[in-house]
Amino acid sequence: MQAVDFNSDMGEGFGPWTIGDGVDAQLMAYISSANIATGFHAGDPGTMRRTVERAKQLGVAIGAHPGFRDLVGFGRRHINAPAQELVDDILYQLGALREIARAQGVTLQHIKPHGALYMHLARDEEAARLLVQNLQVIEPTLLLYCMPNSVIWRVAKELGQPVVREFYADREYDLSGSIVFTRTVRALDPATVAARVLRACQTGLVRTVEGEDLFIEFDSICLHSDTPGALELVEATREALDQAGIVVANGLPAANGA
Amino acid sequence: MQAVDFNSDMGEGFGPWTIGDGVDAQLMAYISSANIATGFHAGDPGTMRRTVERAKQLGVAIGAHPGFRDLVGFGRRHINAPAQELVDDILYQLGALREIARAQGVTLQHIKPHGALYMHLARDEEAARLLVQNLQVIEPTLLLYCMPNSVIWRVAKELGQPVVREFYADREYDLSGSIVFTRTVRALDPATVAARVLRACQTGLVRTVEGEDLFIEFDSICLHSDTPGALELVEATREALDQAGIVVANGLPAANGA
Amino acid sequence: MQAVDFNSDMGEGFGPWTIGDGVDAQLMAYISSANIATGFHAGDPGTMRRTVERAKQLGVAIGAHPGFRDLVGFGRRHINAPAQELVDDILYQLGALREIARAQGVTLQHIKPHGALYMHLARDEEAARLLVQNLQVIEPTLLLYCMPNSVIWRVAKELGQPVVREFYADREYDLSGSIVFTRTVRALDPATVAARVLRACQTGLVRTVEGEDLFIEFDSICLHSDTPGALELVEATREALDQAGIVVANGLPAANGA
Amino acid sequence: MQAVDFNSDMGEGFGPWTIGDGVDAQLMAYISSANIATGFHAGDPGTMRRTVERAKQLGVAIGAHPGFRDLVGFGRRHINAPAQELVDDILYQLGALREIARAQGVTLQHIKPHGALYMHLARDEEAARLLVQNLQVIEPTLLLYCMPNSVIWRVAKELGQPVVREFYADREYDLSGSIVFTRTVRALDPATVAARVLRACQTGLVRTVEGEDLFIEFDSICLHSDTPGALELVEATREALDQAGIVVANGLPAANGA
Repeated sequence: MQAVDFNSDMGEGFGPWTIGDGVDAQLMAYISSANIATGFHAGDPGTMRRTVERAKQLGVAIGAHPGFRDLVGFGRRHINAPAQELVDDILYQLGALREIARAQGVTLQHIKPHGALYMHLARDEEAARLLVQNLQVIEPTLLLYCMPNSVIWRVAKELGQPVVREFYADREYDLSGSIVFTRTVRALDPATVAARVLRACQTGLVRTVEGEDLFIEFDSICLHSDTPGALELVEATREALDQAGIVVANGLPAANGA
Repeated sequence: MQAVDFNSDMGEGFGPWTIGDGVDAQLMAYISSANIATGFHAGDPGTMRRTVERAKQLGVAIGAHPGFRDLVGFGRRHINAPAQELVDDILYQLGALREIARAQGVTLQHIKPHGALYMHLARDEEAARLLVQNLQVIEPTLLLYCMPNSVIWRVAKELGQPVVREFYADREYDLSGSIVFTRTVRALDPATVAARVLRACQTGLVRTVEGEDLFIEFDSICLHSDTPGALELVEATREALDQAGIVVANGLPAANGA
Repeated sequence: MQAVDFNSDMGEGFGPWTIGDGVDAQLMAYISSANIATGFHAGDPGTMRRTVERAKQLGVAIGAHPGFRDLVGFGRRHINAPAQELVDDILYQLGALREIARAQGVTLQHIKPHGALYMHLARDEEAARLLVQNLQVIEPTLLLYCMPNSVIWRVAKELGQPVVREFYADREYDLSGSIVFTRTVRALDPATVAARVLRACQTGLVRTVEGEDLFIEFDSICLHSDTPGALELVEATREALDQAGIVVANGLPAANGA
Repeated sequence: MQAVDFNSDMGEGFGPWTIGDGVDAQLMAYISSANIATGFHAGDPGTMRRTVERAKQLGVAIGAHPGFRDLVGFGRRHINAPAQELVDDILYQLGALREIARAQGVTLQHIKPHGALYMHLARDEEAARLLVQNLQVIEPTLLLYCMPNSVIWRVAKELGQPVVREFYADREYDLSGSIVFTRTVRALDPATVAARVLRACQTGLVRTVEGEDLFIEFDSICLHSDTPGALELVEATREALDQAGIVVANGLPAANGA
């Protein structure tokens, strides 16, 4: 791999509150794509605007990061809702960010659902298909960030929506290729995370919780900004990539065949 | 006056709730422009989509109807907020509706702030100017519904945003030209309302609470869908206009000089 | 059965919105126990106060009707949350109503969770046990409305919290004794509903969706105020009970052995 | 002054978010009374429970800290609402905390409105009177924290609700005795704040923004937990009081004559 996208969730505060260590503005300097929270699980209109402004300043591409309507649960709690309701909620949030970005002269690169909604769309074909069908109508070139081999990834490939496959730098994998999500996130060691990402970029291999290697394909590295010590993790990872000559750049890699 | 626009607020329910008599779907048949609630004072994404679909079906033009973030107060309570916060909130809501409309192949004709936000922008130059400046960036042809001679009307004229001046069919005027807003709305007589609108269209005159006539200029009749008996009021008004040969049509009248 | 409680959900509006036909005030005259929505799925503080005042005026006992934090979904969508979170939410809502009632000199008779939360507690032992343990601390005589033979019913019996078993007048049963819940509710015939309730009171039998009779035990009839035509259903049911000499009265029937 | 109460706002996070430096748990060790956010401007039921538990552990008295229904504005934006609506909102929040505290075997010492609601009640007689009248009904011994000589202080004195007069350690005063509130708070020097508090306790004097001394009477020191460096400010202040032999203790000082 000679180039890779590096994405992180940005603007996940709300009103008076910031998330994690409150390091969005600094962290933004190390990534190439920012997933901006769009108000339902986090993110108010003012925070969205300031996050767009910061991304624009640094040349970072932006995308919508819609979640379940659940501020108190930060979009991490699954809500049992019909596909149409979820897609209505997603379009609402997508448009909200797009308008705020338009006022800054910025266009959206991508969309990446958040938390429990991301996982729901990775599994629920009805919701995934309805979402991708709508994306095909409103913007067939909008990149869709998702897990490789998930349901939404398969549907997007089928319908022609371009996908960006993610590698989670700060999450554990099991041998099935699934991410082991947890509600609370423990501190991670920057050098370990950086080495893990570099190995994945260079060899496609990641060590699973079972202790065996798994081969994965991806176009973008994801590192969560609310992981404790996120800034150090991102700095270390970016430095490892730079030193190895792997270019961090947004946009769809030509080779991904989406 | 040979033609006039006829607008009403639509989709002002939320989740399980509908507003007023729940007659949006029927009422839509009599108007030419629908102001669709965009989620902050009323309106959820599903209701927004269904309202857009109904408007499209009937050839009714649509606009965003953003309000203060105040569901419980239905956007009728003034919130003391900086201009930038209010404009961020308005762009968020505008974009949300625009995306839902785009998915239905519908473009927005206009924007009309709701309730206490409408009144705020009629008075507060900083917020009005910042909003119009943003509209000039994102869509300089989007029609802005407002009260004639209000602060936002003046700012829009100055900056070149096209305005649609409203006449309130179901609100009282005083001699200063101000609307006498009330939190609770009493029942009105359809024939009286229809006659009042027709007189205004034909002569430009409206009887004020002081008992004297006031001369007003307007491009659109507004009748609130949550006024008790709204459907009868709208039907009677539309019939009076039709019989008088006044065409109900959306779009900016050529003569308004905006 | 010589006496039976008759309960209905009350105050399920929010801000400008009322639920169903908006007949709470009239419907209240026919029931003996009111489940008052407490703000998370419906019900704002003002509506809660007015509902308490109306119940007090008519001598109707009141109880808290807490739901999932989900206004847009009316508490009908299951949210995947830890037991402790749900119990925290329930106590919050319970206390909110208790304070508003205290200001009117009214004490609470009961608690009855709403919608998806009601169903969750009927199945999830951890949440049900934690809730009942807390009720034992804060008010061991507060009546708990629940489905007979549900998990929470069993836990309450075990820990000593008094239970009121419900019969759903406007819902279908299957042979397992489960209620067949639906998101949208169709219109029902008053005479049919009244006859169904009377039969259940007199014989303990209800016809299931499978077409066979099921024997049920209950202390209270529940009829939902948001069922279309609810007022007519409640009137007809109450009249049938009165004519058959079955007294409608709140409080725990002596015979229920809770 | 031989003893003084020391209060701070606690639990002003929401869901995933904490306020300021996130030092509530440590800060609690230095104060005698905790104002616990009750959900409308900050504070979710889980955070409320954990804050009550921590206060109980340290023997800190607790009170309700209700605010305007405005999460995004943190209750700092004034909302134009009728007195009855505001009092309904306050009772709702008060009861919510009281129930959560009851489950932990803790009773409430006091109530202290938050932010813009605190200021509103300091000025608006109708709302202040209605609130105090309700407190007289539901708990005539509940302490009411307020600004000396404010409207609510005068009404409480008149109706017999006990008041605790506050001195703001981290806010500037002007010669009229008014606090100079600001939306954003700058960093303060711990030694300066501690000296200012000590002087006020020992002499009743505070230096105003005009540069002259003002004589003030108070029963409780307030220091905001979301002031940057709040923990250092509280530590320094507490240490200065301890060294001067001034006891930090909750409860109503016998001498305040309320």
